[in-house]
Amino acid sequence: MSKALNIGMVGYGFMARAHSNAWADVAHFFDTGYRPVLKAAAARNASKLRHFAGMWGYESIESDWRTLVGRKDIDAIDICVPNDLHAEIAIAAAKAGKMVLCEKPLARSEAEGVPMVEAVEKARVPNMVWYNYRRVPAVSLVKELVAKGKIGRVFHYRAKFLQDWTISPEVPQGGAGTWRLDVDAAGSGVTGDLIAHCLDTAIWINGSIASLTAMTETFIKERKHVITGEVQKVGIDDAAAVLTRFQNGSLGTFESTRYARGHKALYTLEINGEHGSFAWDLHDMNRLQWFDHKVDGQLRGWSSVLVTDGDHPYLGKWWVPGLIIGYEHSFIHQVADFLEGLNTGRPAAPTFRDALETTRVCDAIIASGKSGQWVNL
Amino acid sequence: MSKALNIGMVGYGFMARAHSNAWADVAHFFDTGYRPVLKAAAARNASKLRHFAGMWGYESIESDWRTLVGRKDIDAIDICVPNDLHAEIAIAAAKAGKMVLCEKPLARSEAEGVPMVEAVEKARVPNMVWYNYRRVPAVSLVKELVAKGKIGRVFHYRAKFLQDWTISPEVPQGGAGTWRLDVDAAGSGVTGDLIAHCLDTAIWINGSIASLTAMTETFIKERKHVITGEVQKVGIDDAAAVLTRFQNGSLGTFESTRYARGHKALYTLEINGEHGSFAWDLHDMNRLQWFDHKVDGQLRGWSSVLVTDGDHPYLGKWWVPGLIIGYEHSFIHQVADFLEGLNTGRPAAPTFRDALETTRVCDAIIASGKSGQWVNL
Amino acid sequence: MSKALNIGMVGYGFMARAHSNAWADVAHFFDTGYRPVLKAAAARNASKLRHFAGMWGYESIESDWRTLVGRKDIDAIDICVPNDLHAEIAIAAAKAGKMVLCEKPLARSEAEGVPMVEAVEKARVPNMVWYNYRRVPAVSLVKELVAKGKIGRVFHYRAKFLQDWTISPEVPQGGAGTWRLDVDAAGSGVTGDLIAHCLDTAIWINGSIASLTAMTETFIKERKHVITGEVQKVGIDDAAAVLTRFQNGSLGTFESTRYARGHKALYTLEINGEHGSFAWDLHDMNRLQWFDHKVDGQLRGWSSVLVTDGDHPYLGKWWVPGLIIGYEHSFIHQVADFLEGLNTGRPAAPTFRDALETTRVCDAIIASGKSGQWVNL
Amino acid sequence: MSKALNIGMVGYGFMARAHSNAWADVAHFFDTGYRPVLKAAAARNASKLRHFAGMWGYESIESDWRTLVGRKDIDAIDICVPNDLHAEIAIAAAKAGKMVLCEKPLARSEAEGVPMVEAVEKARVPNMVWYNYRRVPAVSLVKELVAKGKIGRVFHYRAKFLQDWTISPEVPQGGAGTWRLDVDAAGSGVTGDLIAHCLDTAIWINGSIASLTAMTETFIKERKHVITGEVQKVGIDDAAAVLTRFQNGSLGTFESTRYARGHKALYTLEINGEHGSFAWDLHDMNRLQWFDHKVDGQLRGWSSVLVTDGDHPYLGKWWVPGLIIGYEHSFIHQVADFLEGLNTGRPAAPTFRDALETTRVCDAIIASGKSGQWVNL
Repeated sequence: MSKALNIGMVGYGFMARAHSNAWADVAHFFDTGYRPVLKAAAARNASKLRHFAGMWGYESIESDWRTLVGRKDIDAIDICVPNDLHAEIAIAAAKAGKMVLCEKPLARSEAEGVPMVEAVEKARVPNMVWYNYRRVPAVSLVKELVAKGKIGRVFHYRAKFLQDWTISPEVPQGGAGTWRLDVDAAGSGVTGDLIAHCLDTAIWINGSIASLTAMTETFIKERKHVITGEVQKVGIDDAAAVLTRFQNGSLGTFESTRYARGHKALYTLEINGEHGSFAWDLHDMNRLQWFDHKVDGQLRGWSSVLVTDGDHPYLGKWWVPGLIIGYEHSFIHQVADFLEGLNTGRPAAPTFRDALETTRVCDAIIASGKSGQWVNL
Repeated sequence: MSKALNIGMVGYGFMARAHSNAWADVAHFFDTGYRPVLKAAAARNASKLRHFAGMWGYESIESDWRTLVGRKDIDAIDICVPNDLHAEIAIAAAKAGKMVLCEKPLARSEAEGVPMVEAVEKARVPNMVWYNYRRVPAVSLVKELVAKGKIGRVFHYRAKFLQDWTISPEVPQGGAGTWRLDVDAAGSGVTGDLIAHCLDTAIWINGSIASLTAMTETFIKERKHVITGEVQKVGIDDAAAVLTRFQNGSLGTFESTRYARGHKALYTLEINGEHGSFAWDLHDMNRLQWFDHKVDGQLRGWSSVLVTDGDHPYLGKWWVPGLIIGYEHSFIHQVADFLEGLNTGRPAAPTFRDALETTRVCDAIIASGKSGQWVNL
Repeated sequence: MSKALNIGMVGYGFMARAHSNAWADVAHFFDTGYRPVLKAAAARNASKLRHFAGMWGYESIESDWRTLVGRKDIDAIDICVPNDLHAEIAIAAAKAGKMVLCEKPLARSEAEGVPMVEAVEKARVPNMVWYNYRRVPAVSLVKELVAKGKIGRVFHYRAKFLQDWTISPEVPQGGAGTWRLDVDAAGSGVTGDLIAHCLDTAIWINGSIASLTAMTETFIKERKHVITGEVQKVGIDDAAAVLTRFQNGSLGTFESTRYARGHKALYTLEINGEHGSFAWDLHDMNRLQWFDHKVDGQLRGWSSVLVTDGDHPYLGKWWVPGLIIGYEHSFIHQVADFLEGLNTGRPAAPTFRDALETTRVCDAIIASGKSGQWVNL
Repeated sequence: MSKALNIGMVGYGFMARAHSNAWADVAHFFDTGYRPVLKAAAARNASKLRHFAGMWGYESIESDWRTLVGRKDIDAIDICVPNDLHAEIAIAAAKAGKMVLCEKPLARSEAEGVPMVEAVEKARVPNMVWYNYRRVPAVSLVKELVAKGKIGRVFHYRAKFLQDWTISPEVPQGGAGTWRLDVDAAGSGVTGDLIAHCLDTAIWINGSIASLTAMTETFIKERKHVITGEVQKVGIDDAAAVLTRFQNGSLGTFESTRYARGHKALYTLEINGEHGSFAWDLHDMNRLQWFDHKVDGQLRGWSSVLVTDGDHPYLGKWWVPGLIIGYEHSFIHQVADFLEGLNTGRPAAPTFRDALETTRVCDAIIASGKSGQWVNL
């Protein structure tokens, strides 16, 4: 008989929906021994919270996350609020002995993240950061195969995350919908929001980054605040490009922007090794591009592998070959692994500590963008 | 306050999972005023049924669908069993005053389907057949735009549904997993299983078919029965190709096979009109290929539209631009429309009557495959 | 030292340019022992002929092809005029002891083609029909590999040739530029012009066709004659679709139209066998799509092979890997093989006799399009 | 009547073939008033030179380029030898009053290139550097449309040139076939060979680069010399990645390597502007990817424009829509423009002076790769 796991959600926005869906669906497909229960949701905006809780069937709501953290009937706190609130909530939740799941990035800076790591480790509570793209099956497959040595020595890793939603100077900053443009709430722009995803995957697959240099830019220097209407300086990086050296000797390039017209959420990655290469992009997330140098010459080429077969990561739990899954499935997989980790005692990654490394690299990008210097990590 | 709708599921297989998921998820995303409840599931195999019901949280189980149909607390019967059982269950459910949702094809033949249509119409119960691909957003968008005259006069419609899972002569026929190869259970092979999907979409988008000629083939003439091990004649069509004339004067080509090595569930469609063309395929179901002849010449080309924006059909309910959805979402959309239809009194299509036309065309394909003659519809 | 081969060209249009280019370029890349010389060109339109001959450096011109055929200094006659003139010229050239190279299709009908075959065979002159697509390297590679058994038993062959240039009713028929719409000059519409290409390749790769049924259509029933302005009935097939059974038991589908908006010269072919599949299209002619079922399951997929390596057919003569070739190279390759055939005494295919089979199948398509019956070949 | 232009070719390798083909073919397609004549070829290796001259029909050969430069009957010197020989030959040719066409890069360094520019300008001889990719029609179209303001303010430019042919440590350096790995002959590795192409196009389309920082790497530190067999230090950059700021305020990223398994000559470029974006790659060089933000939302997408229509740059001279051209056509177009420039007096770009800017940026890349500092240009 599966065991109930009572979830306390903080937030009601886009990420809160993606996480709620994962908690609600996981037990229909993955037999982990746990049955998540959408126990309570907390937020200050009462009418939005009520609507959210109603759609998802949360059993109760709280207007203050502190009350939620204090409730005895909550097993895990899921943090889906702007970055500037992560630390306080996570530390309080850990102190209250709750499992803590925090939306990425862990924190606005390494300095802010360190006490979070200390808190969950001191409290010995299961903890995880929602770098969901690791659990896209095609990406998981790259990780598995690179780890097995399929491509041999790695020479290059490159990743981009391109969007185009802030090109208009009319887009405001601040508030619920556009806090990602407000440096106080977000910590940084595309670096913490998008490159952080690229870095998490890169470090997972290709190991730690040894050094980097970066270029950052803010194309639109002033925007109105969404609530006050006041024209403010823009403090975030609209775009960032990074050159890196990995500890394994390979070279990396990373780029992100919200000014690449025509791209919505184009997270792409490619890794080139001695014996082969993999490439993937989020818009066609069920496909893995694979070049196998060992194939006989005349028929050597890039294969477009439709990652929907039963022997592909996670796919045995879904439909039949040829039928694709979507964005939200990466969250369901992450929850499945988290629950599996509770069973086995081997925590699902990335933990808070794992995610701290990504935040450290983000800090280095912002610093290098200002100094123009290489930074050793 | 949303109203409960109690679902009685018949079956526990692949389709029962896809439908259950749709019932379970729909209210998290679509505010239709209804809240489906997974009330009971029925099947003869008790252990498989128990596992299925446990994963999905069905409140109770029944070993006989007749008992399920007779239960007062069931509002809708959802039929997810082999084709030879559709008619009896559907007619009984209609007589019991239940809403009836039947997996496609409606029946093994038009003759078998007619009393089903009569039963639901006589009982005046809401009814629907699960031709789910209409609700893939890119396909829905084609329907909308063709109906608005975006491509003008239509010249060509072509569709294929290619698979490769029965190439080995070792694949058996009959039983739970391979009933689709057993002509008694299935009625036909690729015609009723796959071309039926193509026909449903084609008729919806491009209108009725006036006449057709077909070629059918059974490549592997004998297979073992999965349970008895007895070598039997194969009665289904392994492959079928069809030439059609639509009532609007356009030409159609349809093909399906389970012997196209490398294709898993490659449903493709293309429609060519005076002013433009659309093309789509299921493996990349979130993309719509669109050629607009009205674009200035130098930059005229096929556009790959990523159908994930808020103004695309159904997508406003999901995530944000660039983040794709999967196969099962087509079922969620169909349920959403079904529930909406209950609200508005305008039934969601395809109804049993709509689906009967598709079955009639399937009959004509099988007949023409034998006679070599054109058949008028 | 290479031997001169004096070419006598009949015509000055699009095809005459493609052939002239092949004759002019071949010796720069292929060391066949022959050096084609653009000796003379013949046509009735003196000003156009002079311009054509000037651009290509033909040494002389003739206003009558009969004079050209009669010239002692001409070794080979290359026929690049409308289909209704093929037979007379080819037969006269053969009688005059010239090698004869004829643009496809061989003739407007099998009946017209038979005496052509007889003439070249009686005269024992080298002869060839310009079905150039066989010599696209990716297509040649498919032929080689299918012949070697790489894909095992073949189940399906499908080909299409889609264009969109006659959709407007304002396009006239007849004359130099639009004789392809004039049934008297062309013999048929898309069947002889485009499906003929598909058939030539199909028969070469997959063997003879045993039987077929076809649907043909003329969408625009009347057009003005380009010269007289008179409104005439359109006699050609604007579109044709064909179902075939090959002698090897595989099924074929063929389709062509000039009403597929967005497609310019989209010749596509696909062949599905037990162990793998190939697909190719002319718009991306340097790429071969290849599915190898023998690849380990997790990484099985369609490979996009860029056919530009030194071990690919013909490519060793061109540039370096990754650098593509174009449409006209297929003609250069055909000339290279023709010259090689002169050397070896093993004539390059397709000869007139080979091409007669394609014309026979074209006849059957037109007949079946009228009768609605299957035709045995 | 067209005027003869006598070409004196220095070299017989891959580039000499591509250029010879351009000279030989141009007058068949472009009516510029000039008729290039392959007058003489010069090189030290007599047997290779004889074979080369024989294939292409050069009228005579010379064992020393100095003799060639001194010949009265030569109008233009075409330099197709390793980079370390460019300067001496070009300067001598200019002094002799010859037109000079030099394979790219202009020189191994800006310092070496300056006297070359001075020589041709002092002698007032037509001069050009063979950055052929400007004349790929799709690339030319990007230039035209960006210049017309089609995409508005530019935010990003990114280019890569990826190869994989030096991954094996067994590849030697030095000599005729592998001089590109010898820093003395080549000046640099991928920077001068491949990034130089990317830079030439980028500066042409998006204007000058203001500053940059770069990372360079030599993966394989020692190689055998191809002739002596001696193990030597490798002095070239195997890979380079660059971050740039353009003078127009946009950001650039450039990367090149010969260690990207699976890529042969993958030159890709993308430019993102306020109203749209273009992307292109050399492997599919006839296609231009285009995103038009002004298209109505539901059908907005990336268009794959097949650049083969009569109204596309250069294409009116070739075949018919849908029929592609190849790599060598870019050289034919460059020759056509060069000849046109002789007619009009407006020299075809890039001239030596234009190309000097690219070499200056290459120098900065190599310097920054060593220093780790940003370099202002």
